[in-house]
Amino acid sequence: MSGFDDPKEKETILEEYFELLRFPSVGADPARLKNCVDCAMWLKKWLSPQGFAVELMQAPKMLGTPPVVFAERRGSEGAPTILFYGHYDVQPEDPLDAWETPPFEPTLKDDGRVYCRGAQDDKGQFFAFLCGMRNFLESGPETIPTIKIVLEGQEESGSAALTALAPEIKDRLRADVLLVCDTGAAAEMRPAIMAGLRGVSHINIRLDAATHDLHSGEHGGIAPNPAQGIAELVASLHNPDGSIAVRGFCDRVTPPTDEERAAAEAAAVSPEEYEKITGVAPVGGEEGFTLTERNSFRPTIEVNGIHTGYGGPGAKTVIPASAIARLSMRLVPDQIPADAMAAIERHLRQHTPRGMRLSIEERTDGAAGFRLPLASPVFRLAASVLKEMDPRGAVYQWDGASIPVVSTLKTCSGAAPLIVGFGQPEDRIHAPNESYGLHQFERAMEWARRILGALA
Amino acid sequence: MSGFDDPKEKETILEEYFELLRFPSVGADPARLKNCVDCAMWLKKWLSPQGFAVELMQAPKMLGTPPVVFAERRGSEGAPTILFYGHYDVQPEDPLDAWETPPFEPTLKDDGRVYCRGAQDDKGQFFAFLCGMRNFLESGPETIPTIKIVLEGQEESGSAALTALAPEIKDRLRADVLLVCDTGAAAEMRPAIMAGLRGVSHINIRLDAATHDLHSGEHGGIAPNPAQGIAELVASLHNPDGSIAVRGFCDRVTPPTDEERAAAEAAAVSPEEYEKITGVAPVGGEEGFTLTERNSFRPTIEVNGIHTGYGGPGAKTVIPASAIARLSMRLVPDQIPADAMAAIERHLRQHTPRGMRLSIEERTDGAAGFRLPLASPVFRLAASVLKEMDPRGAVYQWDGASIPVVSTLKTCSGAAPLIVGFGQPEDRIHAPNESYGLHQFERAMEWARRILGALA
Repeated sequence: MSGFDDPKEKETILEEYFELLRFPSVGADPARLKNCVDCAMWLKKWLSPQGFAVELMQAPKMLGTPPVVFAERRGSEGAPTILFYGHYDVQPEDPLDAWETPPFEPTLKDDGRVYCRGAQDDKGQFFAFLCGMRNFLESGPETIPTIKIVLEGQEESGSAALTALAPEIKDRLRADVLLVCDTGAAAEMRPAIMAGLRGVSHINIRLDAATHDLHSGEHGGIAPNPAQGIAELVASLHNPDGSIAVRGFCDRVTPPTDEERAAAEAAAVSPEEYEKITGVAPVGGEEGFTLTERNSFRPTIEVNGIHTGYGGPGAKTVIPASAIARLSMRLVPDQIPADAMAAIERHLRQHTPRGMRLSIEERTDGAAGFRLPLASPVFRLAASVLKEMDPRGAVYQWDGASIPVVSTLKTCSGAAPLIVGFGQPEDRIHAPNESYGLHQFERAMEWARRILGALA
Repeated sequence: MSGFDDPKEKETILEEYFELLRFPSVGADPARLKNCVDCAMWLKKWLSPQGFAVELMQAPKMLGTPPVVFAERRGSEGAPTILFYGHYDVQPEDPLDAWETPPFEPTLKDDGRVYCRGAQDDKGQFFAFLCGMRNFLESGPETIPTIKIVLEGQEESGSAALTALAPEIKDRLRADVLLVCDTGAAAEMRPAIMAGLRGVSHINIRLDAATHDLHSGEHGGIAPNPAQGIAELVASLHNPDGSIAVRGFCDRVTPPTDEERAAAEAAAVSPEEYEKITGVAPVGGEEGFTLTERNSFRPTIEVNGIHTGYGGPGAKTVIPASAIARLSMRLVPDQIPADAMAAIERHLRQHTPRGMRLSIEERTDGAAGFRLPLASPVFRLAASVLKEMDPRGAVYQWDGASIPVVSTLKTCSGAAPLIVGFGQPEDRIHAPNESYGLHQFERAMEWARRILGALA
């Protein structure tokens, strides 16, 4: 018996899992740095007894950022090397008042799900994998792969430290397979192998006009209005048909092969199913592409937030002095992140409304998207392990989301990525009331046990 | 000696003024109702010793709103009746962190200005007038006009209670002259008589899509994005040349007469002066109209605020579930407020992006704009009084701002409006660090003393 079959072990695992979740490790928020460091130290303490040499690493010139946990456990002579990647940082918890339970107090409800920020993304998923790995190591296998673990604290905000660090520690990262547990299974928990991910980059912009908020009567019709300006600027990014209006942004978009397209469509969610999950019809994005194409094979520019002026009850008749917007882009092969960002920036400058000053408050060029060859040996092995776990077998997916640093780790480690996760849409990652089902947690543990055995 | 010439009286007046300013009487905020009631009671206590019968009035069916202070003091037999209007409510104080002193702690600085929310708009202006009135009454004049005073607590949010109440108490409001002290003097404190005001209405809108915030990778290209939607919707309100794109909105705009236009242009602020005051060039509004025309004689649709999604540091890659915008409109003769609002609402519904639900969270049809005949006896009298106060004499102005309830009071009282105030652009009303100079306060006192004498 191992994992959740043993009530005592289940209790231990849940206790540990809840401890891990209680750290409000919002990596993007400098005010939460201490919480991130505490979380990293907790992980070091957890890994050491499993025979890992653990280091908390800091990228040069990035001392004020969450540390990277690097752990290594030498395996049997001649066995392959596994590099496992996860992230212990989580998304900010706002809007606070939409949470039914406190965002950093894990709550196991009667529906068999644990509610907490990070319950799934990625604390729940990587920790379930690590618990399965512990089962595997404790089961006394004949051969054990060398296991390297990288857990970072900035995935949700661009992985700056690990991206800078990875080329420096290239030799220590070297591995045969790069395992990642930070993605979703297909509909109804059918196993899924991630055959591609979109890249991501982000840019935070600001428009300024007057030195202070102005009375909208005294100044209306004269003063440039940044609230109107930001609306016009953001609206200018798309054409009426939903396509991207930024010149040059889509120049190097490579369409999928017929095989990729067919495999993706076979695993596609139906519009009805989508609406049931999200409460909205899947009518966003570009006209002339299928739902799967728009999500897996087309780039996007999304507005993640706009804030300017008054938002309270009643009226405040003000012309705001400034406005901010948060934008993020999803990139597909073979878009070059720096070129795509340059195209956006050029567009924003050209479309800055009269009388306003544009500033780029922050930006990351981010990571490229990638697609992996379906016929690789690692994929064949994974497919047969997943078929043992679920008679339906695995599907291939090209996720719309991104784990930007995977591109970097892929290059620096020389390893073949094997990205298998057990998320489901009802987990509501990045949103209030994020959760992870115990059945999903168990699946991830089982996957770890089995794939480590198969790779040994 | 009276007013600020007498050091002891100056001390008393400043003490009273500061007491009045300390009430955080934000009429739009239900949480501040108690503060508004306290402020109204303070005003009752202040007015009673001057011989006024004072009542706190509540409009029928509006019990949870700030009361209207109504005061009346019978004058000499046969003397005319003055109706004085002011408002004791103030704008919300946000953004809090932009204030250099606490927003509700009046601070007299070395520059001779009192810093506080409401220091000018309208507590400072109406209270200075009332202090001048007290001087006048205490000076033992031979004839005294009958004085009626209306001080309301909802001017900044649409004057709902007074608008409902005024027709009910029509007979008690009846007067010959309607005095208002809630506007600005011209450049360099040259006296100004308000010959017109724009009307105002507002509408608070909301767009909803998914039931919860969505991950912008998982859902990007599929889910409708209300942050993008609100930008498109707001941008659709104007044409690229800055003119209003809402069909029907400008149908009944009456241009100024040649005399009005000439008088307005004579008192116009220069673009250089404007930029010095606000930090921004006056390049907002419609192409093809002068600065004065755009501010005084053209209607506007202004965006007062947009809030949606993430606004913090770093990136939060989310597709927000909803977005809000706050819009207000300035109306000119002969636009009909209800028709203008209907045009806006029709436009918003027609332009609601696919997959999103529009709700009107709140709206006021508001008040019409008006222009007064320049050749009236009241204007001639006021001009001669102001010429005594300042050898440069008065200019006529058509303010871009609004005191919506003045239209209502004008109709219900049958009085000729005489709107003279002493605001200056550096007062920064509606913005952080609002202030009022003591020299302005003194001017308003002097105006009250003289005009009440002249009208008696």
